[in-house]
Amino acid sequence: MAQKPSIPKGTRDFTPVEVAKRNYIINTIRSKFENFGFQPIETPSFENSDTLMGKYGEEGDRLIFKILNSGDYLKKANEEAYTERDSTKLTSSISEKALRYDLTVPFARYVVQHQSELEFPFKRYQIQPVWRADRPQKGRFREFYQCDADVVGSDSLWQEVEFVQLYDAVFSALHLEGTLIKINNRKILSGFAEVIGEQDKLIDFTVALDKLDKIGKDGVQKEMLEKGISAEALTKIEPVFGLTGTFQDKMDILKDILKNSETGKKGIEELEFVENAVKELGLETARLELDVTLARGLNYYTGAIFEVGAPARVKMGSIGGGGRYDDLTGIFGLKNMSGVGISFGLDRIYLVLEELNLFPETVTVSTKIMFINFGEKEGLYALRAVNALRKEGIVAELYPDPAKMKKQMNYANKRQIPFVVLAGAEEMEAQKYGLKNMNTGEQEKINLEELISRIS
Amino acid sequence: MAQKPSIPKGTRDFTPVEVAKRNYIINTIRSKFENFGFQPIETPSFENSDTLMGKYGEEGDRLIFKILNSGDYLKKANEEAYTERDSTKLTSSISEKALRYDLTVPFARYVVQHQSELEFPFKRYQIQPVWRADRPQKGRFREFYQCDADVVGSDSLWQEVEFVQLYDAVFSALHLEGTLIKINNRKILSGFAEVIGEQDKLIDFTVALDKLDKIGKDGVQKEMLEKGISAEALTKIEPVFGLTGTFQDKMDILKDILKNSETGKKGIEELEFVENAVKELGLETARLELDVTLARGLNYYTGAIFEVGAPARVKMGSIGGGGRYDDLTGIFGLKNMSGVGISFGLDRIYLVLEELNLFPETVTVSTKIMFINFGEKEGLYALRAVNALRKEGIVAELYPDPAKMKKQMNYANKRQIPFVVLAGAEEMEAQKYGLKNMNTGEQEKINLEELISRIS
Repeated sequence: MAQKPSIPKGTRDFTPVEVAKRNYIINTIRSKFENFGFQPIETPSFENSDTLMGKYGEEGDRLIFKILNSGDYLKKANEEAYTERDSTKLTSSISEKALRYDLTVPFARYVVQHQSELEFPFKRYQIQPVWRADRPQKGRFREFYQCDADVVGSDSLWQEVEFVQLYDAVFSALHLEGTLIKINNRKILSGFAEVIGEQDKLIDFTVALDKLDKIGKDGVQKEMLEKGISAEALTKIEPVFGLTGTFQDKMDILKDILKNSETGKKGIEELEFVENAVKELGLETARLELDVTLARGLNYYTGAIFEVGAPARVKMGSIGGGGRYDDLTGIFGLKNMSGVGISFGLDRIYLVLEELNLFPETVTVSTKIMFINFGEKEGLYALRAVNALRKEGIVAELYPDPAKMKKQMNYANKRQIPFVVLAGAEEMEAQKYGLKNMNTGEQEKINLEELISRIS
Repeated sequence: MAQKPSIPKGTRDFTPVEVAKRNYIINTIRSKFENFGFQPIETPSFENSDTLMGKYGEEGDRLIFKILNSGDYLKKANEEAYTERDSTKLTSSISEKALRYDLTVPFARYVVQHQSELEFPFKRYQIQPVWRADRPQKGRFREFYQCDADVVGSDSLWQEVEFVQLYDAVFSALHLEGTLIKINNRKILSGFAEVIGEQDKLIDFTVALDKLDKIGKDGVQKEMLEKGISAEALTKIEPVFGLTGTFQDKMDILKDILKNSETGKKGIEELEFVENAVKELGLETARLELDVTLARGLNYYTGAIFEVGAPARVKMGSIGGGGRYDDLTGIFGLKNMSGVGISFGLDRIYLVLEELNLFPETVTVSTKIMFINFGEKEGLYALRAVNALRKEGIVAELYPDPAKMKKQMNYANKRQIPFVVLAGAEEMEAQKYGLKNMNTGEQEKINLEELISRIS
C-alpha cells in the first residue's frame, strides 16, 4: 500500500509564493549587510558534536539534533551505557555529528579555524537554517533560518552605532516603519546588582527584571524577594521599576542610581556614546529606546544588548536581537576577540509584513504569457515566440499538450496568467499571433515584434 | 583545554569569495528557471525516514544520514535488535527522521501531499542542499547543493525540447560555451535488449554499455559476455558499439537495428521529435548529441535521458543530467503522473568556471571605500559621509578603532579596499574629505558631493 505522505512536525514545505516572499526578505537583508561591508560565509549544516555540545547549556544540549553514525554504529557503543540503557550517556558513542543549533558557535569555530586567513576586525554575515528539537508550537519551528551579522576583533562602540543603523536600514527598506530598537547594557545590569550588594544573584535579578512588561512591578519584586533579594535592596533601585520619559530622562535617573558603581558608570558611558551618535546621524524610520529590563541570554553578552520590536500596531514578539560578547572564540582557544552582532528573525518578519500587507505585488515572478498548444507545427511556431519573449526577460510558456482549448484556457485562468496567445494555421500563414488579454477579454492579431512590445 | 576546531570530513566552510561565486552560479540558474516558468518550492532538510528509505536502493539506504530521536530514545528501541546488537535492525526504532538524500523524492512527496493545491502540469524548481554519507573524496562531498527543475503532469515531448533549451540558456548565461548536451532514450536501450532477446538482462546490458567511453568496445563486450549475453546477440547490434557521425547518421543506423522493436521505434520517434524541434529553434552555445550509451539511473528513467558534458577543453565529469520518469509519485499513491526533469551540478560547474576563468570580476561585493578613524568627533563626521555613500549603494566603512594610522592603512591594503578617506580636524573645518586612491597613491581634498560622484 502506498504511504500517506507527511513531513516531520515542526518542519514546513514552502510553496512558490512563500519562497518568493521569504527570498524578498532575505535579499533585502543580504543587500543591506553587504552595503554595510559585511561579507558572507557559509558553514556546514552539521558540525562535530563536540563543537556544539556544552555551548548552549544543558537545555540546549538536549535540543541539539544528533546524527546517528553510519554503518555498524553499535560496534563503538559505550558498553556501560549500553548495558544500563542510558540514552544520554550512550549518545556520544553512537553519534559524532550534530545539526547546527545557531550560527554564532559555528561562526566562532570558523574564526578560530581560519584565523590566519582573516583580516581583523572581520565583518561577516551568514544566512542559513538552524535546527532545534524544541516542542513545535505556533510560530516555533524545528527548522528555521537565522540571518546574522557580526564583527569580531574590535571593541569599538562605533560598531554598536552601526548595528543600530543597520537595523534601521533593513526595516526601512522593507517599508516596515516604526520599529523600536531597544538597547541596554550588561554593565548597567551588573551595576544594579553591585549597588544592591547582590552580585551573586545577578542572573536571578535580571531574569526577574526581564519580565517587567509581562508581570508588572509587583510581580517582579515578588519574584526577586522569593529569590532571596532583600526588600531593602529593592528600595535602593526602586526607580528602575518605573523608568519613563526620553532616553536622556532615563539616563539621568540611572546616573544617580549607579553613581557608586564603576561598572554601572561604564555602562552609562557606553550607552550615551551610542545614543549621541545615533541622534547626530539620525535614523530613517526606527526609534532607539533605552530598556533597562532587557537581558536576553545574559551569560553571553558583556556590553550592549539589542532587541527589536515590531511596530506597535502589530502584536508580535521581538523581530531581532543581539549584543556584544567579549570572549566568544575563547572556547576554541582564541582569546581576546571581542565581538558584537545582531540577528534578524525571518519567520516573524514574514508574519509582520503579511499582516501589514507590506509585500510588494511584484515579489512573485510568475508566467506572464502562455501559448495555446495546437499541435506539432503550431507548437514550433509558438516556441519561436516564447524564445524571443524569454530573451527579453518575459516569463513565457507553451502549454505542453495539444489538449482541448477549454482545458488549456482553464489552466491559464487558474494560474492567473494575464495573457494567452492563440496561433493556429491561419495566424502562422499571416505570421501573426492572436493575443488575448485574460482580464479584459480583448483580442488582437499582431506580429512578433508588436507582441514583445505589448507585453514588455 | 580549548578544543582544536575542525569540521566533519566531507563538509566545507565557504569563504566570502566562495559564497559570492556560488551565489553567482545559483542566481544565474534561478533566473533562467524562472524565465522558463518554473516556480520555486522548498522542502524540509529532514523527512520522515519512511519517506526516504527504500527509494534509492540498498546502497542508498545506507548512505542516508539518520537523525537520532530526541529524549530517552532507547525506551522505544527494538528489543530483539538491541539484544542482538544489530545496528541495521535497530535504526528504525531509535531514528524516525533522516536528512534529504536528493530533491526528487521530496518533490514527489510534495506533489502528492499538496496535489489539491497544485495546477498540473506543475513546473517547479528547487535549489537546496542534500546530504549523503558517501566516502568523501576529491570533488565528492557529504553536503552539497542540487539545483533541479522538473515538470509533472504531462508526457508532452515539448518539455524535453524545453529542457534542452534551458540547459543551453543557463550555460550560455554563464558564458560557458561549447557544452555538450547528450541525449538518449530508455526505449532505445529497451529496444536493444528486445532485439537481442535479452530483456531480462537489460540492466546488465546498459550498465556495461554505459562504460563504452571508459573501457572501449572490447571491454564492454567482454563484460556483456561475462553477464551471460551471447556472442550471437552482440553481433545483432554490433554497430551500436561504434556509432559516429551526425545525429541523423546515428538515427539511420538505429532505425535499421531497431526496425523490429516497437519500443525501439517509439524511442526513435521521440528522439527525432526533440532533435527536429531543437534544430528548428536553434541553440545559443550548446550542442545536442545522441549518445546511445547513456544510461544514468536506468531504473528510474522511462523516456529521455540527458547528461551534459563540460566543454571539451576541460577535464570534468558531467555537469548536469536528468530525464523522463513515468511514475515517480506512484510510491506515494498518486498514479499516472509523468514527470521529466534536469539537474545542475553546482560544485562541478564552479570548478569548470574557475578553471576557465569565467567568473566575472564583479562577482564579489566588497568594500570600496574606508574612512580612517581619528576619534570620536572625526568618526561622527566620517559616518555622515559613510551613510550618504551607502544610500548610493556604495559599500563604505569606517575603521572601528582610532588605531595608529599605519595599522588602519595596512588593514585597507590587505583587504584590497581601493579608496581610503582621511578627514581630521582640518578637513572637518573646511567640510572636506581627503580621498586617497590606494592604487595610484593620488590624493585630493573634495567635498561630500564630489566624493560621492568620484566613487560612483
